[in-house]
Amino acid sequence: MTYCVGMLMDAGLVLMSDTRTNSGVDNISTFRKMNHWEVPGERIVALMSSGNLATTQAVVSKLEERTKAPSERHNCVLEAPTMFQIASIVGKALRETIAERDQSNGLQASGTFSATLILAGQIKGMEPRLFLIYPEGNFIEATPDTPFFQIGETKYGRPILIRGYDPAMSFEDAIKLLMVSFDSTLKANLSVGMPLDLLVIERDRLEPTLETRITATDPWYRVISASWSDSLRAALDGLPDFPMQTRQSKA
Amino acid sequence: MTYCVGMLMDAGLVLMSDTRTNSGVDNISTFRKMNHWEVPGERIVALMSSGNLATTQAVVSKLEERTKAPSERHNCVLEAPTMFQIASIVGKALRETIAERDQSNGLQASGTFSATLILAGQIKGMEPRLFLIYPEGNFIEATPDTPFFQIGETKYGRPILIRGYDPAMSFEDAIKLLMVSFDSTLKANLSVGMPLDLLVIERDRLEPTLETRITATDPWYRVISASWSDSLRAALDGLPDFPMQTRQSKA
Repeated sequence: MTYCVGMLMDAGLVLMSDTRTNSGVDNISTFRKMNHWEVPGERIVALMSSGNLATTQAVVSKLEERTKAPSERHNCVLEAPTMFQIASIVGKALRETIAERDQSNGLQASGTFSATLILAGQIKGMEPRLFLIYPEGNFIEATPDTPFFQIGETKYGRPILIRGYDPAMSFEDAIKLLMVSFDSTLKANLSVGMPLDLLVIERDRLEPTLETRITATDPWYRVISASWSDSLRAALDGLPDFPMQTRQSKA
Repeated sequence: MTYCVGMLMDAGLVLMSDTRTNSGVDNISTFRKMNHWEVPGERIVALMSSGNLATTQAVVSKLEERTKAPSERHNCVLEAPTMFQIASIVGKALRETIAERDQSNGLQASGTFSATLILAGQIKGMEPRLFLIYPEGNFIEATPDTPFFQIGETKYGRPILIRGYDPAMSFEDAIKLLMVSFDSTLKANLSVGMPLDLLVIERDRLEPTLETRITATDPWYRVISASWSDSLRAALDGLPDFPMQTRQSKA
């Protein structure tokens, strides 16, 4: 499994992804699921992936034209004029990669090679944009109604995102919100694992404001993880009790 | 879908279940998923169900021997000497019901008629006990390490249960915790719906302490649902910010 979240805010974009890949529960590895490409001052484009690792690595290789000699490569992500066109190109590469694997492995393997992507970025003179790209190659874009996308193990960490998200929040608050969402998921699903990759893309800066990895021993992470239980219990304590006395009668 | 939780605490047992059943998203109904039987002063036994409604209703009918004339019925749930034996009987009835449907519908329907149950109760002179019964008819019992069971749409509401559960909590606190867990699930999955059924089984009382239905217009529910977002945001605010300034360098 995997857990990745991309969040579109007034201030820009924040992306977080875990690094665990697994085949069963007895074969786990650490792989980066977040890639980004930049032309400083002109564009920054980031991609996060969930699903079959061979598929998502192949998609990235195709985008970078790694089948060609280094001097002949044209990374279309760095050249397409709009984020929408990049989403189309990435979607097409994803669809083709999955179709090739499916074709050569027959019906039995249907679904095995599937993958889903989150694409985020900004090109100079245009807005920061966030897309969810499906295995079928089509995609949807984040809007004020649905300003964040999750892929992989999305459910455990979703309620806090729904409650905590605010488009006007600072990057610090957004990272804290994502950290709590990831911590809930890490505690519930063994196939989501530390360390986490974090990328902050500030509006109109057109290069990463922050790119870092949060490890299991990170002092800030340990404080968040340890104190969130207490914070939640305190929040629960603050809610009104169920009026048991007035409801004693059987319904 | 469905969401049911059974929780074993020092004070006794608390059960909560939603009432929505659906076939697709355009055919939804309200059905009670919680049943209980009692011999006041001697035993109380409750059953919650998720999965195929025809299956779970058939299991309850079998337990109550509704195929027989009313005067000849013996409800085994009211007669078995231990909760463990009741769990065995219920598991067997569940397994048989699913197998009958599967058999008469062939391989294509495999899984369609499946269901999972939570069994809770106490018999005089013995401890309150809580079981999770699988479609295969086998079951596990709650222990101090795993003191609550969820069935149906379990993921959205799980993180708060993990964080908030305390065996020494009062019934009021337990109901509040369940309410928040259900509210997170209700907000995320349309196939879980109000009203909610609530049953409180106090240790050694051997009859329901509280049996009630919480509707969407319940004033207490509305306060919890409305104020939980604010409580969570305040809890997030109380956590330390991510030290962005000291992490500005690229990893």
